[in-house]
Amino acid sequence: MEKTELKDDKSKEVEEEQVVSPWEVSAKDGGKIDYDKLIDKFGCQRLDESLIQRVQRLTNRAPHVFLRRGVFFAHRDFNDILDSYEKGEKFYLYTGRGPSSEALHLGHLIPFMFTKYLQDAFKVPLVIQLTDDEKCMWKNLSVEESQRLARENAKDIIACGFDISKTFIFSDFDYVGGAFYKNMVRVAKCVTYNKVVGIFGFTGEDHIGKVSFPPVQVAYSSISFTHIFGNENIRCLIPCAIDQDPYFRMTRDVAPRIGYHKPALIESSFFPALQGENGKMSASDPNSAIYVTDSAKEIKNKINRYAFSGGRDSIELHRKYGANLEVDIPFKYLGFFLDDDAELEHIREEYGSGRMLTGEIKKRLVEVLTDLVERHQRARAAVTDEMVDAFMAVRPLPNMFN
Amino acid sequence: MEKTELKDDKSKEVEEEQVVSPWEVSAKDGGKIDYDKLIDKFGCQRLDESLIQRVQRLTNRAPHVFLRRGVFFAHRDFNDILDSYEKGEKFYLYTGRGPSSEALHLGHLIPFMFTKYLQDAFKVPLVIQLTDDEKCMWKNLSVEESQRLARENAKDIIACGFDISKTFIFSDFDYVGGAFYKNMVRVAKCVTYNKVVGIFGFTGEDHIGKVSFPPVQVAYSSISFTHIFGNENIRCLIPCAIDQDPYFRMTRDVAPRIGYHKPALIESSFFPALQGENGKMSASDPNSAIYVTDSAKEIKNKINRYAFSGGRDSIELHRKYGANLEVDIPFKYLGFFLDDDAELEHIREEYGSGRMLTGEIKKRLVEVLTDLVERHQRARAAVTDEMVDAFMAVRPLPNMFN
Repeated sequence: MEKTELKDDKSKEVEEEQVVSPWEVSAKDGGKIDYDKLIDKFGCQRLDESLIQRVQRLTNRAPHVFLRRGVFFAHRDFNDILDSYEKGEKFYLYTGRGPSSEALHLGHLIPFMFTKYLQDAFKVPLVIQLTDDEKCMWKNLSVEESQRLARENAKDIIACGFDISKTFIFSDFDYVGGAFYKNMVRVAKCVTYNKVVGIFGFTGEDHIGKVSFPPVQVAYSSISFTHIFGNENIRCLIPCAIDQDPYFRMTRDVAPRIGYHKPALIESSFFPALQGENGKMSASDPNSAIYVTDSAKEIKNKINRYAFSGGRDSIELHRKYGANLEVDIPFKYLGFFLDDDAELEHIREEYGSGRMLTGEIKKRLVEVLTDLVERHQRARAAVTDEMVDAFMAVRPLPNMFN
Repeated sequence: MEKTELKDDKSKEVEEEQVVSPWEVSAKDGGKIDYDKLIDKFGCQRLDESLIQRVQRLTNRAPHVFLRRGVFFAHRDFNDILDSYEKGEKFYLYTGRGPSSEALHLGHLIPFMFTKYLQDAFKVPLVIQLTDDEKCMWKNLSVEESQRLARENAKDIIACGFDISKTFIFSDFDYVGGAFYKNMVRVAKCVTYNKVVGIFGFTGEDHIGKVSFPPVQVAYSSISFTHIFGNENIRCLIPCAIDQDPYFRMTRDVAPRIGYHKPALIESSFFPALQGENGKMSASDPNSAIYVTDSAKEIKNKINRYAFSGGRDSIELHRKYGANLEVDIPFKYLGFFLDDDAELEHIREEYGSGRMLTGEIKKRLVEVLTDLVERHQRARAAVTDEMVDAFMAVRPLPNMFN
């Protein structure tokens, strides 16, 4: 009998200590998300050291910073993807973005930076979904506005450096592949209202667009894209933040019942807000995040004013006890974006022991982020509407496995 | 404030005397459907004599038998359609079929025969929807099988004589007009789960395909078909059986909120089963109906064996009391399909008084139905796959208002 992914779903217990769903991430009493508990609740697996070493062996290159440092920390069946890759079988990458705001912040870049690494390392095709329909329904944006945001966000995604000969970007609203609506119906037939409430926690006062969206998401993430892969039913690996797990848990439950592989997942923790690690960055508070549109001056100002520091209250105490790295946002951000392991280790020692001061680590972070953001801005400025059209054209990908 | 169509919805009271929904039609204790109560419950209007006379004046031809004899007996805003028609404004017809079975029975032909009359009389374009998705979800047919049935049924529909220069037929599964999914989302955002349960009576154990189908139906029945009408937002008249009213009540509630006209409706009673008037004919009992595929011999046999008779138990009693026309199926069927008013009146007098015997009225009915069915079979045999493709091609209608 087919093992169901949903039977032991414990993600919506009544006495919720922390909430992690596609629409809400909040820790208990404003504390930190407990990722070990989340892995247990969701029923996924921890991405351990041996898997990371296996990635290194198979791809013959250093694992990405986000792997080495545990940003991507959980998975479902990633080992199966590596097994089949080792046997020479094909797979493709699938990720996406809900276009709810004009400007992306650094947290939004993380899955795309990581996906670019995976595309380069495994030499595989990539499908990027823009869930403009989801944002239209949850954020009460008009169809037109959510589509406009989708195109704007596509420019930022393209600026991450994806290879157009291997990458297809689509908008849910605009995709007209004949199989989409058929697969949506096939999926919806497999899921009762009670089950969808169990996974996503909808109420009777929610509009039914929300109820019908999970089959849309499942249909897109389980169908073969025939214009790319023909009728070949190839495996799929989805890099995403762990709050998206409920959708793909449902996909993994339904896909085999309609003739598709279960997608594998590789899942990240959340990028912390400037003010500290109690959830995701918030688009509604511009000072909670560094945006890819921020100027060097804004970055410097935000880091200096808002980045929660683990440094001590006085220089004397700091020299004596050292910084509290567990809560220090500059150190955490460097863990995401400072590539050089030796330098990061040096900062850990110096700052943790109190020899380096808060002002110094913030200065280094400002340099690293300004460099990252300015490179992104230059790359994005070079993305034309024609390039967006080209990435979004329904077409075969000529060069996808080379 | 916009008057809502749904506020006073009394169609799903707990103590239901009779059930009339898109999926179930059953009278209390196997009796007759009470159409007066239905009009009251649904909140539609009776199609009265003055409206029928107005149709005659405006179209300059005799009203269709189905109008003269009250088969189409209820409406919503049909008078508004006639007002705008009188002012020279355009409207179009919209009807459809759920393709759940290979062969149509006579009851299935009624909306199409009537729609053909409306198309000819008002000289208007017509859009015919094949809800293969609905049948896939409710009848548990595969996508492929419901699409096959849709094409087979399209041949029967085309055989009713629709004008290809004014008629567009589409399958829900195959329609790829960009506006469809966007409108589905716009509609779904307007309707809560509680509301949809109030209208359609879904339960938590129903699959969510059912929950997401009403927005599909509403989206199709309220959108302008841009390939036909450009961006003109023209009025729509929907001829249908009254069990479809809940869908279009929802359409009328939502359409104005997303920028479309409320469609007007003209609604028929149900064609009675051979065994008597307690609901619709049943596809699961082949002897409850005359099919358009039946041979002359089968028609004769079914009428003689199964048509419920209002004739008396003996010739003596029959001569004395006359037939009970209230329950007599042959007389009712002639009311649908015998065009000649004078002959029908003659039969009413002769049979009702007992001068005409059951065998005689059945003989006349067999003649009328055999003629009807054989004409349909000849017309259907001439419908090629190319014609189906032509009717279903997404295209402008060159001649639609002439």
